[in-house]
Amino acid sequence: MAVKITSAENAQVKLAASLHRAKMIRTEQLYLAEGAHLAAEALRSGVTIERAFVEEGCSAEVEILFAELERRDVPCALLPRRLVEKISEAKTPQGIVLLVRLPEEQLKLHTDGRYLLLENLQDPGNVGNILRSAESFDFDGVLLCGETAEVYTPKAVRGSMGSVFRLPTARYADGAAAACALRGAGIPLFTAELRGDSRLPDELPERGLCIAIGNEGRGITEELSALADASVEIPMSGKTESLSAPVAAAVLMWELFRRRR
Amino acid sequence: MAVKITSAENAQVKLAASLHRAKMIRTEQLYLAEGAHLAAEALRSGVTIERAFVEEGCSAEVEILFAELERRDVPCALLPRRLVEKISEAKTPQGIVLLVRLPEEQLKLHTDGRYLLLENLQDPGNVGNILRSAESFDFDGVLLCGETAEVYTPKAVRGSMGSVFRLPTARYADGAAAACALRGAGIPLFTAELRGDSRLPDELPERGLCIAIGNEGRGITEELSALADASVEIPMSGKTESLSAPVAAAVLMWELFRRRR
Repeated sequence: MAVKITSAENAQVKLAASLHRAKMIRTEQLYLAEGAHLAAEALRSGVTIERAFVEEGCSAEVEILFAELERRDVPCALLPRRLVEKISEAKTPQGIVLLVRLPEEQLKLHTDGRYLLLENLQDPGNVGNILRSAESFDFDGVLLCGETAEVYTPKAVRGSMGSVFRLPTARYADGAAAACALRGAGIPLFTAELRGDSRLPDELPERGLCIAIGNEGRGITEELSALADASVEIPMSGKTESLSAPVAAAVLMWELFRRRR
Repeated sequence: MAVKITSAENAQVKLAASLHRAKMIRTEQLYLAEGAHLAAEALRSGVTIERAFVEEGCSAEVEILFAELERRDVPCALLPRRLVEKISEAKTPQGIVLLVRLPEEQLKLHTDGRYLLLENLQDPGNVGNILRSAESFDFDGVLLCGETAEVYTPKAVRGSMGSVFRLPTARYADGAAAACALRGAGIPLFTAELRGDSRLPDELPERGLCIAIGNEGRGITEELSALADASVEIPMSGKTESLSAPVAAAVLMWELFRRRR
């Protein structure tokens, strides 16, 4: 029952395995979605699936996905486990990996939208998690600034639980470039930081705003703080210094979502 | 300037390096706190520091901590970098690792307290992050059930940003054992899950309650759900299936904290 691999398929496996690195994702305009859950989310979200790699002897769940992919004329390669392991970043690959095309449309800023700005957020799992919360609380998009981790690496895609397929994002060289774009669109910017003059979450406008979350260790840069319209602070017990970046982002977005209901 | 290592110190390094594993932590009743930030938090929190390992040629920040540790009669070993790397779990060790004794006192349940129950939460980073949020939002303790990751592994301690030094926790064999203890203390249990009959966050009592958070993928077990007084659900946009465990926990704890203010 050994599957015969063509040299074209071998080249595709090599390409796929290179997409763990942010640089290759941008060069190839392709990224990976691993596992049955993300594959199902990709199918439902209408992203462009270029190719699927399926492990031979896969589970019934993966077989159903496989059939659906073939029905949609997605080229599928049946691979032995060792090749799926080569592509997959997960410790225990789940039998299916999709090659997805980066979206052509980028985030458009609307005066009455709700946006999140991430400044130098390093951890790809955190970035993915924040996208998941942003979609859960009906935000319209995420501005990724400076050294913020690539959202299309396997770890970020997994952390987003599929929100990366649907929530628009845009890249900016740094926080200042994003602040400039927001100003152009008439959207006020609020930095999440302890600045002395910080507002409380319920003093934020309900819509037409952008909330900025800083680096996990260093927070918001002075440059971005100076460009913000105001800062916002989540009240706490005083026993800890701060909340984690994904928790601070989620609590602020929940506050706006809660008030609209 | 080579530091001479005694055989007793070598044995201590070996012991410390074994404390990345949950089993050894429980056997030795000791755990590690790595880096200047956590070392400072440990000093301020009054935990019992058994020993400190400091890298030779360390930073000024670590030197101040070193002086403070010596002032408190904590045995300190000055080690070459290769030995600090052996102890440290971090990719780039920050020059100081403390050996901390597990607390003797466990969490005590009070009728009017606010508690979190974690059922089979697998990721140590998530467990640490949840402890950080729990202390930030003035919760009184965390019940760790079943397969929930050890809170004293380096990853969980780091994720807690020091909250593990202060927030009381208790271990239970499973959710049912914890539910039984809560019932005995007259504390109602609310599971965070979509159960059809779920309450909204603002229908929870302000104090005298325990909120249960389930496994990252599978959620709350049927067994625990059946033992709960009610379930609670965070309203969402409907575009995603769920929130991550640390975000769900934080939003629910924030809701109670917000209402008390």
